[in-house]
Amino acid sequence: MLNWYLQSGDNSDVVVSSRIRLARNIADFPFELKCDKNKKAEIIKIIEDAIIGNKYGLKLLKLKDMDEITIKSLLEKRLISPDFVNENDDQKAILINDEENICAMIHTEDHLRLQVFSSGLELDNLLNLIIELDEFLQEKLNFAYSEKYGFLTACPIEAGTAMKASVLVHLPALTTTGNIGKVLDIINNFGMNVSGVHGEGTKSEGDLYQISNKQTLGISEKEIIKKLKLITDKIMEQERIARKYLAKNRIDLEDSLYRAYGVLVNCRRISENECKDLLSKVKLGTDLGIINELTDLKVNKLLLYTNSANLQKYLGKKLEGLELNAKRAEVIKTIVKE
Amino acid sequence: MLNWYLQSGDNSDVVVSSRIRLARNIADFPFELKCDKNKKAEIIKIIEDAIIGNKYGLKLLKLKDMDEITIKSLLEKRLISPDFVNENDDQKAILINDEENICAMIHTEDHLRLQVFSSGLELDNLLNLIIELDEFLQEKLNFAYSEKYGFLTACPIEAGTAMKASVLVHLPALTTTGNIGKVLDIINNFGMNVSGVHGEGTKSEGDLYQISNKQTLGISEKEIIKKLKLITDKIMEQERIARKYLAKNRIDLEDSLYRAYGVLVNCRRISENECKDLLSKVKLGTDLGIINELTDLKVNKLLLYTNSANLQKYLGKKLEGLELNAKRAEVIKTIVKE
Repeated sequence: MLNWYLQSGDNSDVVVSSRIRLARNIADFPFELKCDKNKKAEIIKIIEDAIIGNKYGLKLLKLKDMDEITIKSLLEKRLISPDFVNENDDQKAILINDEENICAMIHTEDHLRLQVFSSGLELDNLLNLIIELDEFLQEKLNFAYSEKYGFLTACPIEAGTAMKASVLVHLPALTTTGNIGKVLDIINNFGMNVSGVHGEGTKSEGDLYQISNKQTLGISEKEIIKKLKLITDKIMEQERIARKYLAKNRIDLEDSLYRAYGVLVNCRRISENECKDLLSKVKLGTDLGIINELTDLKVNKLLLYTNSANLQKYLGKKLEGLELNAKRAEVIKTIVKE
Repeated sequence: MLNWYLQSGDNSDVVVSSRIRLARNIADFPFELKCDKNKKAEIIKIIEDAIIGNKYGLKLLKLKDMDEITIKSLLEKRLISPDFVNENDDQKAILINDEENICAMIHTEDHLRLQVFSSGLELDNLLNLIIELDEFLQEKLNFAYSEKYGFLTACPIEAGTAMKASVLVHLPALTTTGNIGKVLDIINNFGMNVSGVHGEGTKSEGDLYQISNKQTLGISEKEIIKKLKLITDKIMEQERIARKYLAKNRIDLEDSLYRAYGVLVNCRRISENECKDLLSKVKLGTDLGIINELTDLKVNKLLLYTNSANLQKYLGKKLEGLELNAKRAEVIKTIVKE
């Protein structure tokens, strides 16, 4: 079974992936900022006990036991957030299963941030899964909850459902036509956050944008999903209109996409950033049925394994700088020829 | 049998082709500038009679009977010069054989400019051929000749041997290393002309330069060839040193050459100029044994048929502007896949 990030899902010509996360804190423990090392260790122990014999295949892994490349590879897969990695704290841990469609961060801004992932647009199923997981954990763990505010979080504005649902969308045509700014404004005015691939405050790479709800309090989980689906439908519509517009000048579009493909599969060294730019065009080309040399799976593999840490995971060895750029070009050729 | 311009010859990693031309004028006729229409027609008739039953397969073709694309295709093959084409004169004609390794221009600056061509560095054989041709024509035609000055030409400084020998050299590595200016200065100081692909006053395209003798008077034909061979040896040496220097940074070189190849064979529209730039790198790549996807023949075909007029000849139809750029990309793919 392929990991979710190598699969294609519903509407994955525009929606690369969906994600839902719930922030939870264990009652009778101070919030993270005031939680000392011993308390943190205690929380980890409680959670470790709670998942014993769980049916999801969840295991608890401590970040201090992982090498740097493994941690970076999780970040590149968007399973964990940059903030979680950057803070120096030897009490950090994750709960993760083999499929990697469940990954909880322990000791981030909150004690526990439970996350579920899927390729494509898959918010309803993800909501069911995360509710089930949350109920499973609540049976064992006593989550901080108030009748008035709902689930309590370190940052008060995240309380209530304490839920963030997001989609990662690929908007190359809106970027090319120059309408991206207008569309992002509309999303913002609709009460949604727009950010780069690694969440709020990060930059867009390869024409990928993450769209997530702002409001968590005074709104139900189902309403959040409904609203996100509504705006995602609009974004998909706008991106597809832009793609049709570009396709009117068919040969220009084909030329631009195939030149990117030509450089990608023939270069002998390539940086991660250039790779992201070229892969954005190559993905658009395969999604539009213009580039037939690659399957969706190969594009997904290229999108994953051209990231520096996953590249090193793929090769099974540690590499640096320029050497990495040369190996990236080799791996691209290997995946293309598979 | 392939036409010479599709063949590879001696040292054709650097020397694309060799050419020798002799300027001749028919005695008892005024030079071109003072030659009226009737006299010009008379000269054509004399030459036409002179070549009856010739063993070289030479035929006389009048430019006024040729379509524009055919004339331009001859120019692109460097069989005729831009000046010859640009002057509006319905008395212009050429002598040409099927192999196209002999092409004489009638009514250019002189009455007759006899030319022979070969791929690679082939000056000795060309000299033998053109001397033989000249002797054959002299038996029938009375060339203007003075004991003191040798063969007389419209431009006095071209008299004597009235011979120009040239090589077309491909100098991409000297261009990349930035040493090209120095090398061209040396060639100039050695008493040689350096020019673009279409002779004096034309620009270099695709890192191709034409090197020819300046002096025609007070020097023998053999001495001209000897001197040109000497400087060509030096140029080849310098270009090959520059190539070795570039190859020290092997992966950078491969990357640059293969990116050009990738764009060339994947683009869906391409201008003639971009094509020349890319083909310069692709030829360097095949000559260095780095790009193995193409044979020399394919590179020579690409160099020929991506020129606008020869492209239309290849396709057998007249095309314009943007349409031509799209068809050029198609023909590239066809030739590569042959």
